[in-house]
Amino acid sequence: MPAERKRWSQEFSRWFDWVLEEAEIYDYGRYPVKGMGIWMPYGYQIRRRVVELIRDVLDEKGHEEVLFPLLIPETLLRKESEHIRGFEGEVYWVTHGGTEPLDIKLALRPTSETSITYMESFWIKSYKQLPRKFYQIVSIFRYETKATRPLIRLREVTTFKEAHTVHVDFEDADRQVAEAIELYKRIFDELGIPYVISRRPEWDKFAGAIYTVAFDTVMPDGRTLQIGTAHHLGQNFTIPFEVRIQLPDESLDYAWQTSYGLSDRVVATVIAIHGDDRGAVLPPIVAPIQVVVVPIPARDEEQRKRLQDYIGEVEEKLRRLGVRYRIDDREDVRPGRKFYEWEARGVPVRIEVGPREAETRTLVLARRDTLEKTTISIDELEKKLPELLEDIARSLRERAWNWLQSKVKRVETVEEARCVIEEERGIVELPWCGREECGLRLEESIDAGVLGSPLERPEWVRGKQCPVCGQPAVTSIRLAKKY
Amino acid sequence: MPAERKRWSQEFSRWFDWVLEEAEIYDYGRYPVKGMGIWMPYGYQIRRRVVELIRDVLDEKGHEEVLFPLLIPETLLRKESEHIRGFEGEVYWVTHGGTEPLDIKLALRPTSETSITYMESFWIKSYKQLPRKFYQIVSIFRYETKATRPLIRLREVTTFKEAHTVHVDFEDADRQVAEAIELYKRIFDELGIPYVISRRPEWDKFAGAIYTVAFDTVMPDGRTLQIGTAHHLGQNFTIPFEVRIQLPDESLDYAWQTSYGLSDRVVATVIAIHGDDRGAVLPPIVAPIQVVVVPIPARDEEQRKRLQDYIGEVEEKLRRLGVRYRIDDREDVRPGRKFYEWEARGVPVRIEVGPREAETRTLVLARRDTLEKTTISIDELEKKLPELLEDIARSLRERAWNWLQSKVKRVETVEEARCVIEEERGIVELPWCGREECGLRLEESIDAGVLGSPLERPEWVRGKQCPVCGQPAVTSIRLAKKY
Repeated sequence: MPAERKRWSQEFSRWFDWVLEEAEIYDYGRYPVKGMGIWMPYGYQIRRRVVELIRDVLDEKGHEEVLFPLLIPETLLRKESEHIRGFEGEVYWVTHGGTEPLDIKLALRPTSETSITYMESFWIKSYKQLPRKFYQIVSIFRYETKATRPLIRLREVTTFKEAHTVHVDFEDADRQVAEAIELYKRIFDELGIPYVISRRPEWDKFAGAIYTVAFDTVMPDGRTLQIGTAHHLGQNFTIPFEVRIQLPDESLDYAWQTSYGLSDRVVATVIAIHGDDRGAVLPPIVAPIQVVVVPIPARDEEQRKRLQDYIGEVEEKLRRLGVRYRIDDREDVRPGRKFYEWEARGVPVRIEVGPREAETRTLVLARRDTLEKTTISIDELEKKLPELLEDIARSLRERAWNWLQSKVKRVETVEEARCVIEEERGIVELPWCGREECGLRLEESIDAGVLGSPLERPEWVRGKQCPVCGQPAVTSIRLAKKY
Repeated sequence: MPAERKRWSQEFSRWFDWVLEEAEIYDYGRYPVKGMGIWMPYGYQIRRRVVELIRDVLDEKGHEEVLFPLLIPETLLRKESEHIRGFEGEVYWVTHGGTEPLDIKLALRPTSETSITYMESFWIKSYKQLPRKFYQIVSIFRYETKATRPLIRLREVTTFKEAHTVHVDFEDADRQVAEAIELYKRIFDELGIPYVISRRPEWDKFAGAIYTVAFDTVMPDGRTLQIGTAHHLGQNFTIPFEVRIQLPDESLDYAWQTSYGLSDRVVATVIAIHGDDRGAVLPPIVAPIQVVVVPIPARDEEQRKRLQDYIGEVEEKLRRLGVRYRIDDREDVRPGRKFYEWEARGVPVRIEVGPREAETRTLVLARRDTLEKTTISIDELEKKLPELLEDIARSLRERAWNWLQSKVKRVETVEEARCVIEEERGIVELPWCGREECGLRLEESIDAGVLGSPLERPEWVRGKQCPVCGQPAVTSIRLAKKY
């Protein structure tokens, strides 16, 4: 591996491990089971707000939260043959209860299509009950053989949001995939996470799906990370599980399904994409603390008293604003140390307030994203602070999108594609004839993985040729070094 | 078993199964793994509000939420010998990843003292960091050999709230147990769940604890259910896991711990204790829908329009009140059927509104707990509805406490105790010398289980004798038919 490429990936990896530890987000590498870690209190609060956002967006569109058992009997898991083939190598099996061997092996769910479809066969009998949209947010388990990484490739994925929907026909399931895409856009937009949406190639779709649409983002080292997927499942699960519904004309048919998922990677991406050398930079919507007030020590008792009263005023205003704030009045820690800690944790806004500010009735606002400081009058706080938080959210999103766009390159030859991937990583997009054979050849020649094609045929490939076979391009194909 | 006793327990059991299904709370008995079921959308919303209540109460007292891995390596689980002895018979073991056998067996956590203490040995180094209070809300697994029952005795307990705290000395851990008791009282009081608090006898404390305090309630069939426990763990876990802290005098010592837990049984009890023949009766604090508006159909178009406008007014008021409401305007379902459904689901207040009410600008309020109906003017709604919800909460709590108190009987002889248990179930309390031998003898003679003793020596046993050995009573002992 050329030194340059190695540096990229090692630096990001090291930085990411560092920030998870320094900001007390996720304790990884010390727990004595590979690929499993601990959500620490601060990280848990970030995770919790991400989860709440996901819930709000899904609930609003009529999704109903449920909770299914973790354990799936082997017989259920084996009912859909493509599905089990896809997961067989990475399922954890429970074989004993107490000292007794179990009659039937139980899988730790790798995903829940089988158990949920099984229950749907009892619950759903008529088109009148449809569409029905369930979801749960749970741990799933995959005995990964690839190198594990905190929050990016875990063996216990602790924040798996899986939605499972049932429909009367193919078209309605198709529409549901489109809805899922819109919902995920909203979630990622709120978090300032940029994405590329691709229809995965046939040879890389979800095990048991008719087709898979995926969201990918580009990590700071230029590799892509899959951050969300939506699958049209057709009748692939409802047939073996016999989810038969009565149709308007009173005939019986198998129902149609979709499923779509998000994971811990959403939190990983929020931290990885926005962060900098000083640590995390959190979008206000998920920041456990949006504003931290750091007092600058006073020199004498009189000053100290005045400062305390002044901080009281500030606190009252923050409370009324309804922002999540913390007054860091630890006596034995110097302001510089506090700045360092809160910067590492990614608190969006720091308010510095000392004797001078108390005297002039001003406040110093330091924003975490650009590190800029502004002095404002205390009377402006109610107006300026919400604006500032909004501006931070907007500017994080913009910066991240600019970064992503700079990492997507359209090229027309294999040589150019290889060069881009070799030198800059990111995503290359080429004209494509649509044939698997040429896609696989490209993967090999460029030494990268296929992400898939845009949902609609892009204008720019018109008149272009597949760089492998020279046939007319019907769409484009995207490749990248993938996580 | 005498017919009477059999009837009690069967009727409650059947009623409970029925209400879980009819109100769509928890689907049990159809999932193909024994002792595991599905939280349905409506039940999930009840559970979610119970969880939120628990979080609020814990967070307020400085508890920090975390999330630990589900899987605990056998070596960790075996480090505290009493502990593993207590759980060995009921641990589920993961032995394979994919098709490979694992190097070391992994337990599905039965509880997390071992994994959490293991990590605390990295995190906690000094008395200055103490006390530290962690908690998580997770699934735990027990391969139960007793008969399983939905939400009462499960093999996957899906709502296990386990708190784990670390302290500088015995006394501070002691105080923490007292705090836990106060917190649990608050949670149960909010839910209207009555309880008896007992110090469990030595022979029935938590595996690895110095002592255990437990909350029990009496179910409608007269059997008691353990609904919460708090344990003083001493240094039993910190010694084998080497959680050593620096003390103020710079010496090193092992830290002290407590742990305390709640489970799905909290939700089970809310439903079991307050319910009636028509179904669940939910305290407003956890009711997913607090008020349902059921329109009574109009006869002509003009009436219908007026009624619609009127319902619009009602809805606006409900929205401004911030209550959780639903307008049940399904066209193809008759009001009687709607009443039945919402009663089964335990919605605290039903508002009936038809052409007559629209004309007289009145509303009929039906309360779920007493089934009483009142007619009020629409202008009184903002005042009367919150009062009514509060009154329902208060009255459910009172009724439940009266029931519990009627089921606790103080007696002085074994014969009386046996009679009470035989005829009425509930809890019997006898004077006791405090010796294990007499406690065990009582269990046998009365054919009931020991719950333990009050936290403080009760006044009424003064001058009384242990009914087994005739020695002076130093406290009382409680026995019951236990779940």
